[in-house]
Amino acid sequence: MSKPLILVVNDDGVTAPGIKALVEAVQHLGEVVVVAPDSPQSGMGHAITINKPLRLTPVNIFDGIKAFKCSGTPVDCVKLGVDKVLHRKPDLCVSGINHGSNSSINIIYSGTMSAAVEASLEGIPSVGFSLCDYSNEADFIPSIHYAKLIVEQLLKYGIPKHSLLNVNIPKLSLKEIKGMKIGRQALAKWEEEYVERIDPFGKPYYWLTGKFVNYDQGHDTDEFALANGYVSVVPVQHDLTAHHVIPFINENWKLKATGGDEGIVPKISKEEFNL
Amino acid sequence: MSKPLILVVNDDGVTAPGIKALVEAVQHLGEVVVVAPDSPQSGMGHAITINKPLRLTPVNIFDGIKAFKCSGTPVDCVKLGVDKVLHRKPDLCVSGINHGSNSSINIIYSGTMSAAVEASLEGIPSVGFSLCDYSNEADFIPSIHYAKLIVEQLLKYGIPKHSLLNVNIPKLSLKEIKGMKIGRQALAKWEEEYVERIDPFGKPYYWLTGKFVNYDQGHDTDEFALANGYVSVVPVQHDLTAHHVIPFINENWKLKATGGDEGIVPKISKEEFNL
Repeated sequence: MSKPLILVVNDDGVTAPGIKALVEAVQHLGEVVVVAPDSPQSGMGHAITINKPLRLTPVNIFDGIKAFKCSGTPVDCVKLGVDKVLHRKPDLCVSGINHGSNSSINIIYSGTMSAAVEASLEGIPSVGFSLCDYSNEADFIPSIHYAKLIVEQLLKYGIPKHSLLNVNIPKLSLKEIKGMKIGRQALAKWEEEYVERIDPFGKPYYWLTGKFVNYDQGHDTDEFALANGYVSVVPVQHDLTAHHVIPFINENWKLKATGGDEGIVPKISKEEFNL
Repeated sequence: MSKPLILVVNDDGVTAPGIKALVEAVQHLGEVVVVAPDSPQSGMGHAITINKPLRLTPVNIFDGIKAFKCSGTPVDCVKLGVDKVLHRKPDLCVSGINHGSNSSINIIYSGTMSAAVEASLEGIPSVGFSLCDYSNEADFIPSIHYAKLIVEQLLKYGIPKHSLLNVNIPKLSLKEIKGMKIGRQALAKWEEEYVERIDPFGKPYYWLTGKFVNYDQGHDTDEFALANGYVSVVPVQHDLTAHHVIPFINENWKLKATGGDEGIVPKISKEEFNL
């Protein structure tokens, strides 16, 4: 059997220590190809580059590993990497290792996780890894161990279609980490506070700062796992439908159900609202 | 009772015809304030600006309406608008009207929808509107009618916390539109094809092109509604957990359940994997 083809991406850029760590974690598990942004792309979410061309340049950074830097976002790296570098869907896409947590709601802002989500959208099994340590000198040894372990599981047992994994590793030594917990995204948010400064020309500008607030007391969340010394594994999907809200609208809004197909899915008629 | 405070945002930029249409739709339903990007931000997804300051400049574009242009992304507009313009949570956030569809998987790339998602994250009821017509000369009259109708429903009946609405309006006349359907996000994707060109210096560059492919035959989807002449309303949420995948991992991966809290959430022990 041929070796699995593994696409490695990130959002901190192709020269970040985290992606080097991820290549180290997976390089013996398959044929590894790197396509990563040519500059840091943290906080890019699921941004894509439209109406502007992209560049793709080979780089010789990872020993014996085919690698490219891309002028676009993390999601662009996946799209362009699949179409123009690999010329086929890889067997797995791994993203990271991010410098900083992508647990809970951070997933939605994260370029690392959005790259993994994009791969999953395209039917590629995928996983994003993040270390809860923003430092450029962060110790990636525990992350490498767990990334290897999880990728082995993924290659062996797979993951249901249209889902992927969000893995966060606590800032602890390998000895201190208690193991792994599979759970759900905690309900949390950032409370923003923009710091206002005045430029030399008298005009204001604003710096984003914020405080992460976890509202979720559940013991089955990623935040609980991390706070208690576990690696957190959250399976993720990209159907954003709030299925439970459909009956709420049907019951509470002024809706008129009709027969046939429309019988199941009520509508507001034009007549009723004088449109 | 005082009038509801309504924040209007978009991703096509503060001068786009779509946001003018949205202001027109909601201006008599509350006190309206606009905070929108100073340049087009389509495809920005949930990107935020970090490590770079933002600018906020008053603009006099909308007759009698307080409005600002912001140098950031659509999500930045919501964050900065709430913190530095409104100084409190608005009662509603409306985003759009986008020039082009944000149905199905488009939601994930959409700055319009990400702005609405951000508002919802912050506990603000919200809705994003998109017209399935990319033209700058698009007819927004039907969109204005439906946006007004939906915002009235939202202000009257609310929406469950942590959910919001994704509304897409077909490119049809008011007379042709059959009504509204409440449904779910269709399972669809973009099949990318990058067009390669060579620059005057012999180096390649790549343009993103793609074909939207709908895999979903369901009659309860946004794509079905739009294809059949209805306005599509999809309730959306931001918990990305694939809850159904948690038991899959617990059953299929080589996991070891332990007692106590750990009994519910299995872990991989260090010993088992020689870490």
